[in-house]
Amino acid sequence: MGSSFGRLFRITTFGESHGGGVGVVIDGCPSRLALSPNDIQQELDRRRPGQSTIVTQRQESDRCEIVSGVFEGKTLGTPIAILVRNEDARPEAYRENQETYRPSHADYTYEAKYGIRNWQGGGRASARETIGRVAAGAVARKILGQLFPRLEVLAYVTCVHELVATIDSATVTREEVEANPTRCPDVAVAAQIVELIEGTRRRGDSLGGVVECVVRQPPAGLGEPVFDKLEADLAKAMLSMPATKGFEIGSGFAAAKMKGSEHNDAFEIRGAEVRTKTNHSGGIQGGISNGENIIFRVAFKPTATIAQPQKTVTAGRTETTLAAGGRHDPCVVPRAVPIVEAMTAIVLCDHVLRQRAGSLARP
Amino acid sequence: MGSSFGRLFRITTFGESHGGGVGVVIDGCPSRLALSPNDIQQELDRRRPGQSTIVTQRQESDRCEIVSGVFEGKTLGTPIAILVRNEDARPEAYRENQETYRPSHADYTYEAKYGIRNWQGGGRASARETIGRVAAGAVARKILGQLFPRLEVLAYVTCVHELVATIDSATVTREEVEANPTRCPDVAVAAQIVELIEGTRRRGDSLGGVVECVVRQPPAGLGEPVFDKLEADLAKAMLSMPATKGFEIGSGFAAAKMKGSEHNDAFEIRGAEVRTKTNHSGGIQGGISNGENIIFRVAFKPTATIAQPQKTVTAGRTETTLAAGGRHDPCVVPRAVPIVEAMTAIVLCDHVLRQRAGSLARP
Amino acid sequence: MGSSFGRLFRITTFGESHGGGVGVVIDGCPSRLALSPNDIQQELDRRRPGQSTIVTQRQESDRCEIVSGVFEGKTLGTPIAILVRNEDARPEAYRENQETYRPSHADYTYEAKYGIRNWQGGGRASARETIGRVAAGAVARKILGQLFPRLEVLAYVTCVHELVATIDSATVTREEVEANPTRCPDVAVAAQIVELIEGTRRRGDSLGGVVECVVRQPPAGLGEPVFDKLEADLAKAMLSMPATKGFEIGSGFAAAKMKGSEHNDAFEIRGAEVRTKTNHSGGIQGGISNGENIIFRVAFKPTATIAQPQKTVTAGRTETTLAAGGRHDPCVVPRAVPIVEAMTAIVLCDHVLRQRAGSLARP
Amino acid sequence: MGSSFGRLFRITTFGESHGGGVGVVIDGCPSRLALSPNDIQQELDRRRPGQSTIVTQRQESDRCEIVSGVFEGKTLGTPIAILVRNEDARPEAYRENQETYRPSHADYTYEAKYGIRNWQGGGRASARETIGRVAAGAVARKILGQLFPRLEVLAYVTCVHELVATIDSATVTREEVEANPTRCPDVAVAAQIVELIEGTRRRGDSLGGVVECVVRQPPAGLGEPVFDKLEADLAKAMLSMPATKGFEIGSGFAAAKMKGSEHNDAFEIRGAEVRTKTNHSGGIQGGISNGENIIFRVAFKPTATIAQPQKTVTAGRTETTLAAGGRHDPCVVPRAVPIVEAMTAIVLCDHVLRQRAGSLARP
Repeated sequence: MGSSFGRLFRITTFGESHGGGVGVVIDGCPSRLALSPNDIQQELDRRRPGQSTIVTQRQESDRCEIVSGVFEGKTLGTPIAILVRNEDARPEAYRENQETYRPSHADYTYEAKYGIRNWQGGGRASARETIGRVAAGAVARKILGQLFPRLEVLAYVTCVHELVATIDSATVTREEVEANPTRCPDVAVAAQIVELIEGTRRRGDSLGGVVECVVRQPPAGLGEPVFDKLEADLAKAMLSMPATKGFEIGSGFAAAKMKGSEHNDAFEIRGAEVRTKTNHSGGIQGGISNGENIIFRVAFKPTATIAQPQKTVTAGRTETTLAAGGRHDPCVVPRAVPIVEAMTAIVLCDHVLRQRAGSLARP
Repeated sequence: MGSSFGRLFRITTFGESHGGGVGVVIDGCPSRLALSPNDIQQELDRRRPGQSTIVTQRQESDRCEIVSGVFEGKTLGTPIAILVRNEDARPEAYRENQETYRPSHADYTYEAKYGIRNWQGGGRASARETIGRVAAGAVARKILGQLFPRLEVLAYVTCVHELVATIDSATVTREEVEANPTRCPDVAVAAQIVELIEGTRRRGDSLGGVVECVVRQPPAGLGEPVFDKLEADLAKAMLSMPATKGFEIGSGFAAAKMKGSEHNDAFEIRGAEVRTKTNHSGGIQGGISNGENIIFRVAFKPTATIAQPQKTVTAGRTETTLAAGGRHDPCVVPRAVPIVEAMTAIVLCDHVLRQRAGSLARP
Repeated sequence: MGSSFGRLFRITTFGESHGGGVGVVIDGCPSRLALSPNDIQQELDRRRPGQSTIVTQRQESDRCEIVSGVFEGKTLGTPIAILVRNEDARPEAYRENQETYRPSHADYTYEAKYGIRNWQGGGRASARETIGRVAAGAVARKILGQLFPRLEVLAYVTCVHELVATIDSATVTREEVEANPTRCPDVAVAAQIVELIEGTRRRGDSLGGVVECVVRQPPAGLGEPVFDKLEADLAKAMLSMPATKGFEIGSGFAAAKMKGSEHNDAFEIRGAEVRTKTNHSGGIQGGISNGENIIFRVAFKPTATIAQPQKTVTAGRTETTLAAGGRHDPCVVPRAVPIVEAMTAIVLCDHVLRQRAGSLARP
Repeated sequence: MGSSFGRLFRITTFGESHGGGVGVVIDGCPSRLALSPNDIQQELDRRRPGQSTIVTQRQESDRCEIVSGVFEGKTLGTPIAILVRNEDARPEAYRENQETYRPSHADYTYEAKYGIRNWQGGGRASARETIGRVAAGAVARKILGQLFPRLEVLAYVTCVHELVATIDSATVTREEVEANPTRCPDVAVAAQIVELIEGTRRRGDSLGGVVECVVRQPPAGLGEPVFDKLEADLAKAMLSMPATKGFEIGSGFAAAKMKGSEHNDAFEIRGAEVRTKTNHSGGIQGGISNGENIIFRVAFKPTATIAQPQKTVTAGRTETTLAAGGRHDPCVVPRAVPIVEAMTAIVLCDHVLRQRAGSLARP
């Protein structure tokens, strides 16, 4: 249990990094939505390894197949199953992991929970699992695009280690984000990030970072108090991604150091609409979107796999030392960007459908 | 929708700040657990207003009634309904709110979503809603206490505005936390916090802060990848509480500035068990508890209600100025401590029951 | 677990026959629906004991209180908690049940499952639990009435023991159903039923019966294949009621004895609409309503409580004989009618909300 | 939505009769269960077309692939995805269905609900969808077999049209059921059924029937009142299968014609256990299994597809006549037997896991 997410737009991912493949079943996608494999492939290509020198050099084509739920280019309203086959499997590369727990990986905890694990790679804890999320996110984006043509979901890297970018969330564009392999739209800082990541990789080490996401032009009224507040579901979505350590919305942790007179977002009338002068709330008040931009940040830890030797233990309870071979991302945040966007689109889409259900008098 | 939380230990809260009352229905509590109204009242008393000079002076006795599910002092396995009547209602104090949206409150968003709101107080967005959570948390604690007698769930204030406490999460005790009204166990900082909050109240302003929570002696194996990772459910639980802006586990946002060689928690054998030398993971790896202490922090914004006049708008779309009367907490973190603990106990209890269901070979 | 029903219009009932009370929390009721205690009380009065000579003579006023979710006569969109206090409790009347399992009651199975039971009456297995269902059904009816003013949900008794009524489901009215205490609108058969039930009661025995329910003027398109087919959810709703033994839709078990050429419902154009000439399908095809009347039947067993002495066993595993005292319905079907209607309205309402969520292009 | 079933052993089926394939994702299967493709293939082979002269002559090999969740012959505790490719597709055979609604099929209702349908065969309403159920049922059986080695789930045909078999549910064996293509273990009646079905097929007609299912040696304590009563979940499971029209447990509709003094199941002590002398309850009392055999029956309508010409209408709202070509089962009950067993095993398995979660003091 635990492989499903969402209430009305409900995704169930499946698959380990090694074995038949990975994928997702989407239940609850409205019918008659135009959907092609290419819509999904585009997003999968953004998260795919091997795209630049700063990410893992594994070659995976990650071609998706829509197994069900689409007919003549349109969704049927039935479950959409999407499958991506595994390839480039080199289980022998992982033979050592059969006995040895990699530090800060999930080897030990999967063993503690399930009494078994697929040691040929990360298994279910591998980042390959996010392929299903990105595929479902592509579908969610299509739905949002049809209902709210001006709504944008845009994520980008704001920080890698000590390098902090300056980015205006109100105006940054996807083109700027995709313009370099770091997915940091601050060009000067991006160049430093590339250099830092490459150096870190050479030293057999890895780096953490922060991804920020903005939803521009969202409708007001999304989110269902008290437990399914919009920020609560976003927080769960983000912390369910591998390697995440924190989530903050709007003012975030900085709010703790503020006074109410500074933090409160004064209302004003702008263009006949109720708007706020500031947006410390991050677009959500009382768990419900207020129509301002939704802004949040996600902290990612440094990749657990590093080439430097590390102390660890074996399943047989003896202490040992491990030095990872294999090909890994020295910093996950560039490839995390499309995953953050996907999970955001999924949360929004679910709440959009829920909001449509709940109102008797619909505009 | 959105008023239920948990999969096997499932709580449904109900109630507005004004009206018949607030409460919770707990479905899924195991049978034959000893449970008395006093078990619940104790925890309710910790979140009750009017306990000291630094919290709201509203007087609410918050006496709970167990309406169902308990017979002769034991749980029946049937739903436990707990009701707390509202009192001290002074709707006239809120008359102004009928027309005017309070900045950074949920007045406008509830109106945008539902087209109606109970303007006599905070309605469903009031902190009174958390009474049901605290009551359910008391039941969750009893279950955890029976299954894991050494497990402790302990939260405390680590920061109010610029004042940051020094606390050892491994050794701090509940007695130390409860020893002063701030629920900050660093005595020197606690004294400064009292002074700061009282001064802030006099100036008609409010303050944010941070609550940290530690779970000591948790079992390994809790959490269900990939979406119901333990930290994901904790993040959702925390962000579903009023006034929260951020959540971080273990190293949290600091992880973004670390290298893998620093951040990874090396395994070692200690007392025949697999343990980690450090705990940057915060007790959870791959979404599953590893047996180390679970540690996380929650950021709270400054109370939205302040006595200083603020710019805002009316339902009729005219701009106006509002100065709150009424009695409010100038800083929510002291009273948030028992709520953080309650939600933590609820998440743990749910995952404990899930873990018991999922294992064929049970110890 | 197991005390919640519905996905978007979600009810959670609570309460035992003895103790503080029984009730329901409804989560997912749309906002701004006019709702008064009287809307609910009307339906509760229809299921209340003591209404005639053929039902139990227990006197329970069953006054409902709306604890939350309604403000100034309108729903808020927040959970609606409804509470009915228990009264007329005479636990000493049940003292014998503490040790002795009543045949065909739930005493033994609750003990087997939970290791404990409230022996003061039927506990959670009592028909009093259905109060919460009827209250929620009254709310569901209001929603359906607002969205589909011509839709009718009407149940009635078609059979008690060997007495079988002749009723035209297309034209029977609620007035005819409520015209006599049997809730059988066939006047001649109703008179025989009264006589039969009274004689049976005198002999200390009880009787089974059948309730039929028709939904007239339903919209087409309700039901969600493949598991949440409309008839599947109706079947679950009906079999979740106490004392039910069977469910059939449309042709039901008679379909097993038919040929396809007889059973198939030929389509025709009537008033520009697609309609069927016959309705063996009972208004549902492939799990989705087709706009014809939805018709189903529910079998009820004879009341388990009878005055005649019966062989049984004690908790201590000795054989014994039991003769029930107390006041009970000699036949449950008259009082089951409003409960069948309530559960039907709840299922329809849930699927109406689901259907509204699922369609991008809404009429 | 609506393609998932179960709470802890949760299955999500996907796929249309034409397109990439059909299958299921099982979330919540305990880890370390021995599972091979052959375990699943065996059950799939029992539901496969083309096995005898009395079922459809379509040739489908229905080979299953376990895509995920199994490693070195054991379950991982992660989602088990099972895929069966479609083949033998002759979409041109269905061209007529693009415009014309087949009577008593789901063509019209899918169109009414979704505004689109895959007209190349039955789409999602095809019996091919049940492949996913049978695959999941095979996994559920393995779990039940490990936990309750003596538990048996056995279904068989008791009636086709007017032909009614005599079968002792307590002693009938799977070998007897599988001994002839009707899956009716009454040899004499089985021979008549073969003759009847063959004659009916020649006349271009079809027949209904009844399947009975018995669960022998079930544990007591399964089922979760009040809504997730064991019979309620069984009823939903059965009515969610194509072509079903009714469900009855134990005495079923016959209970309506009985007196309490006849119907009540007297308790007795047998072999130190609490047992009932009769079993009108069908093994479930108050929604919870009592340890007696669980017995229920399911009514199936005659196959909707018949070769005789029928009146119907087109999507363009004109009346027309349709005579089906294609190859279809003239009576579904023989092939329904393994599907009934699969859904029963799934329901039991889910409740077994739920019961394990809910008890603090576990044996």
